[in-house]
Amino acid sequence: MLWGIHAVREAWLNPRRKCFRLWVTDAAGKALAGAMAAAALEGIERPRPETVERSELDRLLPPHSVHQGAVLDASPLPEPQLHSVLKAAGESGLIVVLDQVTDPHNVGAILRSAAAFGAGAVIMTERNAPPVTGVLAKSASGAVERVPLVRVPNLARAMNDIQEAGFWCIGLAGEAERDLGSLDLSGKTALVLGAEGEGMRRLTRETCDELARLPTDEAMDSLNVSNAAAVALYEARRQKMKFMRREAT
Amino acid sequence: MLWGIHAVREAWLNPRRKCFRLWVTDAAGKALAGAMAAAALEGIERPRPETVERSELDRLLPPHSVHQGAVLDASPLPEPQLHSVLKAAGESGLIVVLDQVTDPHNVGAILRSAAAFGAGAVIMTERNAPPVTGVLAKSASGAVERVPLVRVPNLARAMNDIQEAGFWCIGLAGEAERDLGSLDLSGKTALVLGAEGEGMRRLTRETCDELARLPTDEAMDSLNVSNAAAVALYEARRQKMKFMRREAT
Repeated sequence: MLWGIHAVREAWLNPRRKCFRLWVTDAAGKALAGAMAAAALEGIERPRPETVERSELDRLLPPHSVHQGAVLDASPLPEPQLHSVLKAAGESGLIVVLDQVTDPHNVGAILRSAAAFGAGAVIMTERNAPPVTGVLAKSASGAVERVPLVRVPNLARAMNDIQEAGFWCIGLAGEAERDLGSLDLSGKTALVLGAEGEGMRRLTRETCDELARLPTDEAMDSLNVSNAAAVALYEARRQKMKFMRREAT
Repeated sequence: MLWGIHAVREAWLNPRRKCFRLWVTDAAGKALAGAMAAAALEGIERPRPETVERSELDRLLPPHSVHQGAVLDASPLPEPQLHSVLKAAGESGLIVVLDQVTDPHNVGAILRSAAAFGAGAVIMTERNAPPVTGVLAKSASGAVERVPLVRVPNLARAMNDIQEAGFWCIGLAGEAERDLGSLDLSGKTALVLGAEGEGMRRLTRETCDELARLPTDEAMDSLNVSNAAAVALYEARRQKMKFMRREAT
């Protein structure tokens, strides 16, 4: 189940999704009319939306779900493979690795920032990570359709594969000596973030090529993890753009 | 009512708060033992904590509140005045202005980033803004005790006062032509952010000295508002530090 206008719109327009049923309120139906027309034009097969009252949507979902009048029953996305994702992400040169970030709101917001700053993938563990549905998709605001989210059984081993694909793994840690902005992020970069409070697990930290901190007044966990990810992605993107401008002249 | 380990700890250590009752689970009591000793050492008057079961805390709070075993009944903080806050914030040279950002999680996370990146104040409207309690304080993770949050009746008029105090008001808008990173943020800067989706209201936008966008792949609302604020605060902080290093040499 997916909900929220942005999440539903992007899933509806994603041909890799099968959509089974869409329930909308009158207002949400109007908000989604453009997406419906676009899907029809592109020949994407979609069911006829069912117009219902808000209260009916509330009953379909967990309490307090912010559905904005739209709930979609859709097939899950095919699970991407790490090696194919790394090949594709090589172009953007930027990926995010999450070590046991468990809050689906945070993972969703990180996917959204990854999409905004042009990162090619988000990698996380199979265990101690939220499923790619509901709350996560809502927080990602459509970004689950655009940024591959890869779940791996063993994060340290996946980091080795990432390194072999030419990515430099930089772990964010409040106690690191170097400032993220002082590192060269213009090449292939993997940003590694741990859970708030605990940070990365020991093996994850040891597998990183470098540790870096954000220039905050206090320790790293003074930022919400999705905010830390957004800042790190911004810094990487900023450097890459500067590098490209320099190459172009 | 305040809850969550960080929020309760910082309120407990803030002498400008009166604390009436503290309910803790066994584990949370241990996590807060250091703060209790510190408050006693500094002669801050505090009640004796009451050890209870988790279920009792659940009953005290709205459903699904993540209290982490600690709930505090404390006096609200004194409402700061804009002019005194602006005088104090002149030193940091960085403040945040929020136009109708209504989600308490977002406002809390923005306060937390403001604290982390050394901003001197957050200004928001009295109406269409969440109260400085519960969810907001939990999301701020203690930052409500450190960064003054000023609520003003009229945001455009407050922005005039902010400008008269020497701050350059930069509004973040997805459709702006200039990139935030291309502006000089080394002087006194006020970062103005609107609600997600709608952005700033017309009058707020017109009162800004400059509009700027973040270098995202799409429009500004492709970032969660608290993530956008974190990135903007980081960029301002980065430039200020660079400027100070240059001045020092």
